[in-house]
Amino acid sequence: MAIILGDNQYGKAECRLVRIYRDSKRHEIRDLNVSTALRGPFEPAYLVGDQSNVLPTDTQKNTAFAFAKSKGIDSIESFGLELARHFVRDVDPVEGARIEIEEYAWERAIVDGAEHDHTWLRKGQEIRTAAVTVDASGEHVIGGFKDLVILKSTGSEFAGFLTDDYTTLSETHDRVMATALDAKWRFTTTDVAWDEVYRGIKSILVREFATLQSLALQQTLWHMGKALLETYPCIAEVRLKAPNRHHFSYDIGQFGLDNSNEVFIAADRPYGLIEATILRDDAPDAGQAWRASAGLA
Amino acid sequence: MAIILGDNQYGKAECRLVRIYRDSKRHEIRDLNVSTALRGPFEPAYLVGDQSNVLPTDTQKNTAFAFAKSKGIDSIESFGLELARHFVRDVDPVEGARIEIEEYAWERAIVDGAEHDHTWLRKGQEIRTAAVTVDASGEHVIGGFKDLVILKSTGSEFAGFLTDDYTTLSETHDRVMATALDAKWRFTTTDVAWDEVYRGIKSILVREFATLQSLALQQTLWHMGKALLETYPCIAEVRLKAPNRHHFSYDIGQFGLDNSNEVFIAADRPYGLIEATILRDDAPDAGQAWRASAGLA
Amino acid sequence: MAIILGDNQYGKAECRLVRIYRDSKRHEIRDLNVSTALRGPFEPAYLVGDQSNVLPTDTQKNTAFAFAKSKGIDSIESFGLELARHFVRDVDPVEGARIEIEEYAWERAIVDGAEHDHTWLRKGQEIRTAAVTVDASGEHVIGGFKDLVILKSTGSEFAGFLTDDYTTLSETHDRVMATALDAKWRFTTTDVAWDEVYRGIKSILVREFATLQSLALQQTLWHMGKALLETYPCIAEVRLKAPNRHHFSYDIGQFGLDNSNEVFIAADRPYGLIEATILRDDAPDAGQAWRASAGLA
Amino acid sequence: MAIILGDNQYGKAECRLVRIYRDSKRHEIRDLNVSTALRGPFEPAYLVGDQSNVLPTDTQKNTAFAFAKSKGIDSIESFGLELARHFVRDVDPVEGARIEIEEYAWERAIVDGAEHDHTWLRKGQEIRTAAVTVDASGEHVIGGFKDLVILKSTGSEFAGFLTDDYTTLSETHDRVMATALDAKWRFTTTDVAWDEVYRGIKSILVREFATLQSLALQQTLWHMGKALLETYPCIAEVRLKAPNRHHFSYDIGQFGLDNSNEVFIAADRPYGLIEATILRDDAPDAGQAWRASAGLA
Repeated sequence: MAIILGDNQYGKAECRLVRIYRDSKRHEIRDLNVSTALRGPFEPAYLVGDQSNVLPTDTQKNTAFAFAKSKGIDSIESFGLELARHFVRDVDPVEGARIEIEEYAWERAIVDGAEHDHTWLRKGQEIRTAAVTVDASGEHVIGGFKDLVILKSTGSEFAGFLTDDYTTLSETHDRVMATALDAKWRFTTTDVAWDEVYRGIKSILVREFATLQSLALQQTLWHMGKALLETYPCIAEVRLKAPNRHHFSYDIGQFGLDNSNEVFIAADRPYGLIEATILRDDAPDAGQAWRASAGLA
Repeated sequence: MAIILGDNQYGKAECRLVRIYRDSKRHEIRDLNVSTALRGPFEPAYLVGDQSNVLPTDTQKNTAFAFAKSKGIDSIESFGLELARHFVRDVDPVEGARIEIEEYAWERAIVDGAEHDHTWLRKGQEIRTAAVTVDASGEHVIGGFKDLVILKSTGSEFAGFLTDDYTTLSETHDRVMATALDAKWRFTTTDVAWDEVYRGIKSILVREFATLQSLALQQTLWHMGKALLETYPCIAEVRLKAPNRHHFSYDIGQFGLDNSNEVFIAADRPYGLIEATILRDDAPDAGQAWRASAGLA
Repeated sequence: MAIILGDNQYGKAECRLVRIYRDSKRHEIRDLNVSTALRGPFEPAYLVGDQSNVLPTDTQKNTAFAFAKSKGIDSIESFGLELARHFVRDVDPVEGARIEIEEYAWERAIVDGAEHDHTWLRKGQEIRTAAVTVDASGEHVIGGFKDLVILKSTGSEFAGFLTDDYTTLSETHDRVMATALDAKWRFTTTDVAWDEVYRGIKSILVREFATLQSLALQQTLWHMGKALLETYPCIAEVRLKAPNRHHFSYDIGQFGLDNSNEVFIAADRPYGLIEATILRDDAPDAGQAWRASAGLA
Repeated sequence: MAIILGDNQYGKAECRLVRIYRDSKRHEIRDLNVSTALRGPFEPAYLVGDQSNVLPTDTQKNTAFAFAKSKGIDSIESFGLELARHFVRDVDPVEGARIEIEEYAWERAIVDGAEHDHTWLRKGQEIRTAAVTVDASGEHVIGGFKDLVILKSTGSEFAGFLTDDYTTLSETHDRVMATALDAKWRFTTTDVAWDEVYRGIKSILVREFATLQSLALQQTLWHMGKALLETYPCIAEVRLKAPNRHHFSYDIGQFGLDNSNEVFIAADRPYGLIEATILRDDAPDAGQAWRASAGLA
């Protein structure tokens, strides 16, 4: 029996990189949070403190900022690919690279009825995400978003569930359903119109959430994932995580008031949490696609 | 010399109250965080633990949820007034009430190109705020917002400043200026079209931020406040707090790349913080308008 | 009627300053979050963008770090005084300075049963605070802490309270009482053994919380403040803010289990919030002592 | 090709459960955050909204609180095992259960020099964690903690690293090293003195951090994990995640002051992030031990 080093990686997490395009009077902005991680033969750094194979995390950070200029940022997926390919191809000992990026959306300020050239307000909806892995097995891209807070005020039921000695919940055929959705989808190619596909996916997921008469959050998630896969052949797999943002009907009947699903208290904790993967039965092997750098919460 | 009880208040903070209007198939939503606080002759509760004058904070919470149905929520300012007036008029020992409310905005989901009847996405921009005080001196309403994150990629300078032995900063005539603006404005009447005025004020503040060639964040704040007061005679005073969200130009010149204000690192801490009050020189007395319940951060 | 500039200030918020003393093998550490703000004749910066009286916030930051070496950090109160005096005395246009500091405590790592010379674990209890104001009216020091999370599992009641149509709460004569206490105390002198007084005050506040059979959180706060003022003649006034961290008894009786105050659910929001000032009736004028820079939440 | 449901689970996240033991005047407290998740044949809930196999998350919550009384909380590992076994054995369709628990430590208030019987202050150091999985393959327990913030002011170097065109970092042979350590260790048995082993492991990890002259954070992690495995035969594997809490020496030399590693600025983002697994080469299969419910961040 011996003690050995298993999976490991290191990198620079949460580089807050903002790129302004000033090619015309009408500027453009991309606002990112970039985390890089490298994998390879780093045992000497662990076992004897030998750094000769270790490209500093500070260098990884410099590279991200330099590439923002030299390569540009067409999309977070393509920018992640540029960085990952560079580390694997150009830095000798590196065998694998994992790049995770968050993007924060901005919308142009409206001044005198028109979009302003160089002023924006930060949009607060979902945060777009990408996770790129490049290693000997190939290139993997996962698109996604997190914290899309979405609510429907009717069209949701929960009934007919299993009960035991600890069950006190009542059935309902009309409730508020809300969640802060995290979605991640795995591409099987890198030949993708990234921004356009992103907008299309978000639109589909919102549509399914809105239009399905939901018998359970599970059913809603299934329809979301299924519709996404049916529309985009370039996607093999979707992972959805939906914390239930409970809105409990407040008992105002005790004050002589009728509450027909009009007054709710939004609860913080605890909350139901539903997680599911929906995929093609012939999905190609994911390799290290889902192995996280964990740099971003 | 004696030890005495000074200013005090108590209440229920952060009631997360969601009101759905279901009067037609097209539902409406208002999503609030309500904090109430009462003031009056509560010395016995402190000195000898006598609660006979103390309306429980639990009761205050119940009242807020009941009023969401019985009075409705036209605006957070009017809802705050309803609650404050009730506590002062209807609960005998209470002499003053302070209601602080945050409102989170939602936008309708777009499904097949049309706004959906009962599904929304939470908008992430600014959080609207109101602080209402009712006491023997009258009624005070403060409107406002917090965390309006706004950025301009040019049109901002900082030069000609005072220097001393500890000054190392360089002058600049073109920089990114960004902030997460908090604004609070004091009304001199309660006869106001609250929602309409709110939209107007936000529009003015954004316009001034965007269009002024700024020599300092201070100057931008002054122009914001001045324009607001010139437009709305019903407002006596504006308080602005602007943390500088620094975007530092990243030195990519060391890698042979030209950085003409295109690649920035967004910093977390520390940050410049500018705070200013802009008011009419004949503004009526504010009474307890600015005394906070501190229930909301 | 004219529009004018009212109260204003500017500064650098949240300088995360760590000072290591290495005078012997046994190092010492002080870990601070420093916010500075200056007050004075800064109208030209607002009205016409003239910065000639404006010492940059970047310079204020440099000064804090330089003083950490040249003056040292005996206590956060004395360090705040050094900085505030410097800005008012040495920087010509400055008329007032406000320094707010948080301090994070560390405890020495225990290795083989002994305290280690240069390794520490961050202690998670309360954050110590100081707010220093120096201006033409003199010098004011406010000590304090925030987020002292304290709980007692018995010895707390709540009964005999006022009721109205919205009251549903039951009386209790044995409950869990918990809070995350914020306390601020105003000194009337700067000739104080700051660290020793801090430890003494914390000890008194904890003792009163623990030993009083509490009829209300209000009564507990009064006894805390009174005991503090009786012990320390150098303190004129105490301000306490106590959010009630509710621990609700969980109804396990419905599962045939007896719950005699043994199983609780800790709630997040909403929460009761009690705020009170306790002071000497001959307390000297507070001047600008309580006017915050608001750099720290 | 068909679209199918892959891995899925559902449960109740973040039940904030506080248990007081009142068997004598000297009370005891255990303060937990419990997340449960169930796995099994839940396809009908997804595909057609049929809930007949779905035990509500509300019931899972009730069970946790009931078990806090009926089974008690000896340790978070044993409590997690009780819950997981119950769901798998007693709830018919359930095939696997995953219980994740955080525990917050409290220390007794000191009153008049003695520990108080029923008053505590929350300790702010690390949060202890457990993750228990019970399914057809057996029982898996992972112990751990997160957010142990630890710092050494000397005894750390970083030199001899790989360089490329983007490298600007200088070597150093004396720096501050700090991290907020997350550690997770996998047991190969459930016959463990959980609380005692926890204290032992924490002590070992702190000792290794303190005493190793560190050539890299990687090397420190290796020594931590190795020492832990050498001491505890019941543990097969350790996973460590160490975000580098950078403390940069502040350049006060520009103000004529000598900075010999005495004045630092603590940075927020970005940060280096080192992750490693250290294990026995004959470690038994981990099964689903590391598959997270993700209920806790």
